[in-house]
Amino acid sequence: MDAAVYHGEGDIRVEEVPDPEIEEPTDAVVRITHTAVCGSDLWFYRGQRDYPTPGRVGHEPMGVVEAVGDDVTHLRPGDRVLAPFAISCGECEFCRKGLYTSCVEDEGWGGEHDGAQGEKVRAPYADGTLVRIPERYADDEDVLEAVLPLTDVMCTGHHAAVSAGVEAGDTAVVVGDGAVGLCGVLAAKRLGAERVIAMGHHENRLEIAEQFGATETVAARGEEAVERAKELTYGGANHVLECVGAESSMDTAFDVARPGGTVGFVGVPAGVEEAAFLGDAFGKNVALRGGVAPVRQYVDDLLADVLQGTLDPSPIFTKTVDLDGVPEGYRAMDERDAVKVLVKV
Amino acid sequence: MDAAVYHGEGDIRVEEVPDPEIEEPTDAVVRITHTAVCGSDLWFYRGQRDYPTPGRVGHEPMGVVEAVGDDVTHLRPGDRVLAPFAISCGECEFCRKGLYTSCVEDEGWGGEHDGAQGEKVRAPYADGTLVRIPERYADDEDVLEAVLPLTDVMCTGHHAAVSAGVEAGDTAVVVGDGAVGLCGVLAAKRLGAERVIAMGHHENRLEIAEQFGATETVAARGEEAVERAKELTYGGANHVLECVGAESSMDTAFDVARPGGTVGFVGVPAGVEEAAFLGDAFGKNVALRGGVAPVRQYVDDLLADVLQGTLDPSPIFTKTVDLDGVPEGYRAMDERDAVKVLVKV
Repeated sequence: MDAAVYHGEGDIRVEEVPDPEIEEPTDAVVRITHTAVCGSDLWFYRGQRDYPTPGRVGHEPMGVVEAVGDDVTHLRPGDRVLAPFAISCGECEFCRKGLYTSCVEDEGWGGEHDGAQGEKVRAPYADGTLVRIPERYADDEDVLEAVLPLTDVMCTGHHAAVSAGVEAGDTAVVVGDGAVGLCGVLAAKRLGAERVIAMGHHENRLEIAEQFGATETVAARGEEAVERAKELTYGGANHVLECVGAESSMDTAFDVARPGGTVGFVGVPAGVEEAAFLGDAFGKNVALRGGVAPVRQYVDDLLADVLQGTLDPSPIFTKTVDLDGVPEGYRAMDERDAVKVLVKV
Repeated sequence: MDAAVYHGEGDIRVEEVPDPEIEEPTDAVVRITHTAVCGSDLWFYRGQRDYPTPGRVGHEPMGVVEAVGDDVTHLRPGDRVLAPFAISCGECEFCRKGLYTSCVEDEGWGGEHDGAQGEKVRAPYADGTLVRIPERYADDEDVLEAVLPLTDVMCTGHHAAVSAGVEAGDTAVVVGDGAVGLCGVLAAKRLGAERVIAMGHHENRLEIAEQFGATETVAARGEEAVERAKELTYGGANHVLECVGAESSMDTAFDVARPGGTVGFVGVPAGVEEAAFLGDAFGKNVALRGGVAPVRQYVDDLLADVLQGTLDPSPIFTKTVDLDGVPEGYRAMDERDAVKVLVKV
């Protein structure tokens, strides 16, 4: 079968790899129909994060179950499924607690494991990891494209909003206009935020933020952006979603936070070397909550909303490629020609 | 009158300064009877933090009201009072919210303002800032020495415990065996923690931690200390009190935190330049809460406990000096000859 493989900075190739097989009785094999390229993939693509070479890539799998191991009880071949970017056994302390990303079983997608940007994957702990999409929707392309972001970015944006403590009637500031930031806007609105202020650098993305319910947008940079956001919030917001993971965005998030407020952070910290934000956190008693999003904890709720048509993150996909187009997908994301790339395998 | 004045690294002098006067109708003048030297004073004493030279020092005032301005309603000359290290108007959004350290009135002790290590201070916003000690206890020296830590370190340790989410039955780890860390142990026990594990480097201080209710102590350093604390907590603690503010202690706090746990931080960040702890915070979804302690919010509750004899942080004072002995007090703190120095003016 074919799959995308990372060979070094800027070098993604689609090439032949071995077909996956059931190795453990808790495994499933899934034929991928849809997947995506993630902003967090860009860190290794740009050589800013270590990654195995050659290394399989992609961590947003959606497809159809082809085979299941003997111990898999809630899935059958033919089931339409999606998987969070993290694998979870579903039974350990942390899975029981809803913190699926801290599952004691240390498995994942990509690297030395199978990657979602390929024809098939072996899915470990299938009962714990895979989420079944009801049969009624299994072949509805529009629904599937709205469901796909639940594998990562939509649940990640939701985690930012939940971690920032957003509740009905609140004012929230979202730092970042990438796919996660846009999903953060959707999530904050879904939680009932009265005002959502989206901060970013790209007019076309801030237009999507408005489509997603942002009541105001701030397109300025640096100090000017912070001042504008503070003006709009009469001195700072109690709920800030940090959806980038860069040093400047962390600093911005803590700068626009109101004393006593909370920053919900979900951007993979990349290049946050200096802890300058800590001074604001300390002086203003601004809490930092969040981290890698426990998608499995959120996906059932959000899936219900997508299926009933009240949640649709699919506009974040501004470009679609097939499996052979994955390298072009990375290029487009890297050069910001696309917000997020949908891969139809 | 005489007061201690900072003249540069390692140089504290007791010298003549102008007597304070009522300047605003909301002021009081307080004759200091007791104050202390704080671990956070060591940062400028060691030249590790900018500070005005010459600059008045001390931010833990306790004494007797000498005069009040026309608008002061709840204090009279002769009242025995203490003041938190932060001044608060008591009326703004943040004071109303209990976040007195973010009071919109930007006043403080020390620097260009009066410092507590002196014969008298002008206390701005006296109604909002000063806390009256009931007359019955006003001349009981033992009580007063147990009350004095409420001006800062006891409430700061309490803020660490509250911020870390400590509740009855919990297991808490306290990082740091300075006065704040020791008060953190007291605070965690007072909140009902079942196990309190104190981490530090000084046997004599860890003995005080045990006296304060620590069920276990870890005296090792670095990786060994982290491993020992993780062993004791079967993989990490849900509630960690960071009571130092150094880079290594922040890293330790996040390292010993259990996935999904919370670090309550109250050590003034000093020398935390690298944000290495952020990787743990992100990967394990460990929250960071706390900051500069809103003492005024806590002092009434804790004062009640001190007055009824169920809370006594006074063993942190391992050395007592008079006003002329303040320079020697700094030296003793700096060289770790004393945990905390009591100043009887």
